[in-house]
Amino acid sequence: MTMDQMSATEATTPEHLETLLAAAEPASRAWAAATPVRRAEVLDVVAQALDGAADELVPLAMSETHLAEGRLRGELKRTTFQLRLFGEVLRDGHYLDVRIDPADADWPMGVPRPDLRRWKEALGPVVVFAASNFPFAFSVAGGDTASALAAGNAVLLKAHPGHAGLSHRTGQILTESLRAAGAPDGLFAVIYGREAGTTALKDSRVKAGGFTGSIPGGRALFDLATSRPDPIPFYGELGSNNPVFVTAGAAASRTNEIAEGFLSSATMGAGQFCTKPGTLVVPAGSGLVDRLRGAALAEPATLLNERIQEGYTHVLEQLSGHPAIDVLAQGDDPLADPPSPTLLRTTAEDMLADPDALQRECFGPTALVVEYSDESQLVEVAESFEGQLTATVFAAEDEDVRDLVTVLARKAGRVLWGQWPTGVSVTYAQQHGGPYPATTAVGFTSVGTAAIERWLRPVAYQGFPQAQLPEALRDENPLDIPQTVNGRTR
Amino acid sequence: MTMDQMSATEATTPEHLETLLAAAEPASRAWAAATPVRRAEVLDVVAQALDGAADELVPLAMSETHLAEGRLRGELKRTTFQLRLFGEVLRDGHYLDVRIDPADADWPMGVPRPDLRRWKEALGPVVVFAASNFPFAFSVAGGDTASALAAGNAVLLKAHPGHAGLSHRTGQILTESLRAAGAPDGLFAVIYGREAGTTALKDSRVKAGGFTGSIPGGRALFDLATSRPDPIPFYGELGSNNPVFVTAGAAASRTNEIAEGFLSSATMGAGQFCTKPGTLVVPAGSGLVDRLRGAALAEPATLLNERIQEGYTHVLEQLSGHPAIDVLAQGDDPLADPPSPTLLRTTAEDMLADPDALQRECFGPTALVVEYSDESQLVEVAESFEGQLTATVFAAEDEDVRDLVTVLARKAGRVLWGQWPTGVSVTYAQQHGGPYPATTAVGFTSVGTAAIERWLRPVAYQGFPQAQLPEALRDENPLDIPQTVNGRTR
Repeated sequence: MTMDQMSATEATTPEHLETLLAAAEPASRAWAAATPVRRAEVLDVVAQALDGAADELVPLAMSETHLAEGRLRGELKRTTFQLRLFGEVLRDGHYLDVRIDPADADWPMGVPRPDLRRWKEALGPVVVFAASNFPFAFSVAGGDTASALAAGNAVLLKAHPGHAGLSHRTGQILTESLRAAGAPDGLFAVIYGREAGTTALKDSRVKAGGFTGSIPGGRALFDLATSRPDPIPFYGELGSNNPVFVTAGAAASRTNEIAEGFLSSATMGAGQFCTKPGTLVVPAGSGLVDRLRGAALAEPATLLNERIQEGYTHVLEQLSGHPAIDVLAQGDDPLADPPSPTLLRTTAEDMLADPDALQRECFGPTALVVEYSDESQLVEVAESFEGQLTATVFAAEDEDVRDLVTVLARKAGRVLWGQWPTGVSVTYAQQHGGPYPATTAVGFTSVGTAAIERWLRPVAYQGFPQAQLPEALRDENPLDIPQTVNGRTR
Repeated sequence: MTMDQMSATEATTPEHLETLLAAAEPASRAWAAATPVRRAEVLDVVAQALDGAADELVPLAMSETHLAEGRLRGELKRTTFQLRLFGEVLRDGHYLDVRIDPADADWPMGVPRPDLRRWKEALGPVVVFAASNFPFAFSVAGGDTASALAAGNAVLLKAHPGHAGLSHRTGQILTESLRAAGAPDGLFAVIYGREAGTTALKDSRVKAGGFTGSIPGGRALFDLATSRPDPIPFYGELGSNNPVFVTAGAAASRTNEIAEGFLSSATMGAGQFCTKPGTLVVPAGSGLVDRLRGAALAEPATLLNERIQEGYTHVLEQLSGHPAIDVLAQGDDPLADPPSPTLLRTTAEDMLADPDALQRECFGPTALVVEYSDESQLVEVAESFEGQLTATVFAAEDEDVRDLVTVLARKAGRVLWGQWPTGVSVTYAQQHGGPYPATTAVGFTSVGTAAIERWLRPVAYQGFPQAQLPEALRDENPLDIPQTVNGRTR
């Protein structure tokens, strides 16, 4: 960082935070009043500005996060794709969930039905806490910001200290391109420092929070949001073990494919993905275990920052020291900086005896192989997990694994068949979120088009004259928004 | 109550609660696995059984709640209508929000898109806390139960002690008709006593809570739900003042209509509705104030129970004793049991000076008239309110009240034009919920078909063979569920 950048990323003062919050409120209202198509046009301008700054931003990200250039270029592309995809959501209009019930004197409830029209409106200013491990896609211009802006909210973005310089520069480009596109001043700002983040989250002008990070950090912020005099929604994506379950049939017929896919997915990005497969449940004594024992693992890679390095070695030491765990494969320097990847081993019986210790998320290049002696243990082990972002099954296409899949669908937001959970596609049907502690709001996703639902609230208008209604709720429908009339899609 | 009923409604013991919770979990799973149409058929059977028991249930309700027969017959009709309407939601299938993204090698994100299919699945057993003021529609077989059962969840219903005998008998009919229709045993049970309710809410098998009642009671339960080791969604409908704003034009041209409508809506059901218009903001010195001063109010009516009578007289004494408040109209015995209705008066300036005291919900037959001297104060007074279930405008059709309506739409879940907020219609577009303290979950409704969304969570399936997918997610779509494919409704 230059001296200017260092001074720009110092902790936001209470006075400056107050200025930003005071500006965010009117900006949020003006932005919410713009048409969805207008907001889509602005998001396109922002996406274009970020794409154009790739050659400046990617080296900055490399220097702060130790992530590789290819990965970061791909992540920036994903980030601008998200901004444009939310533009598509806005142009489509289904996200407004417009429902129109004309007055009905014969409504079978027994009393006449008034004219009722319902849609979704923006919440107001929101605060988003950026992640360490995705400096673009879950940070300043990431999915939370894109979806909250799309929905019509102002955003205060709490920068992650692991990439403050990149956050500052990305924030400048975002603010400048928003202004150039005609968005209201004060609609977006980056804030720095834990104190500024928690103060913003507790401020009565802030109407929701978003977060991607650790379980303790996310839980502390969730507790703040829910203990306010006026509690607000808090969408935290906290942690996940992402277990993978392999039947004997799959282990026998696809030994190499599963072994290689697992090693690659578990050590990709030095294992620093919330969807890293942390546990692989396999038949005891199978060729798959033989194939993994002593396997050549990925080269040592520097972790995102010192704090993550410390946390990683701490958890790895605890796991390695557990009496039920031994080492299946390991490089020369598992606890060094950078660390060699590690593959640990235990049995299904041992995991069932101490799930809290053996299912703990180890953020970094370590994963645990669990050997089962009886296929019925697959369901038992699956039942022992708490909430997950993902859970995966490897089985033959015609195997009856319904019981296992049913349990996994209760535990996780995304269930995969014969694929690896890393690489979360941004689509209409994506679900990135699950029961606690995967997320703090089980009914929502932080990736994919449905992520916009987090920043909206329904409002119904009863008995309004046509000209006094929001345009999307009028019979003439000048904005051509999809309308459901009397319970039927038009 | 008979001796048998008294014993049946004693506090649920910890041992019995454990039996009910243990039964609810497998029942919930079996019920969730039934097709939506099958669940609709069962809800129809329940509705028919309750309709058939009207002549037994209504007198029981009258004896316990002091509500009038006509009102209670209408409420039971509303209750069985709700059960059937959720059946219609199940047969329609849009509530599942099925999204299908076929694999796409050219997905513009930059990496190939896997096959992803997302829908909504039931949460699991939920606990619902019944309300005092709607012994049918927000109680044992009320909207929370109907929507949670429709979504595929088991329900433990914590009875309100104000109508325990009715709750017991309604619960019997519900349980018997569920069994007769072939629903799994243990799917529904009534529990009694505060301790049983809070124990259930904290139990790890329970996945969500619903509540209709007071701000302190709802907040205490919300705090329990969110401070669990694994926090769960808590849908509480807590309290609302439901202010009504009258422009000078409307006050002059519709004096009698507004005065009579207000008096009727504010004292209907002895003012014991969460949508009672508690505040009427009117032009100072207008004919509308003259018309209300000394107006003949409704006859005294016994309140629901002693606790509500005590709370009512306590709040009324506090309001009447406030230096900025005087009496506009009052019967002979405002603090007696039963109480005569009361109409209080203050000014916009005074309300803006002490909103906490003057906007406090007074549950019972009291309302406050607020005189403004300048129409610009309408927006100011509107801004001073916290979250509301409803807010209402009386204005001429061509008056420019956009600023006022915009503020009210930020404050309330339902905004009315020239109508009264009591009498919440059960429809597709209804919204009963708003920012805190109106509700604890701002994005949801507890009335209308969208209420089913509270009891569901999204699950995505990635890369599954067709035969291993839930039927609703298959290409052949054997259940004929609406599917959105690649972001477009089929």
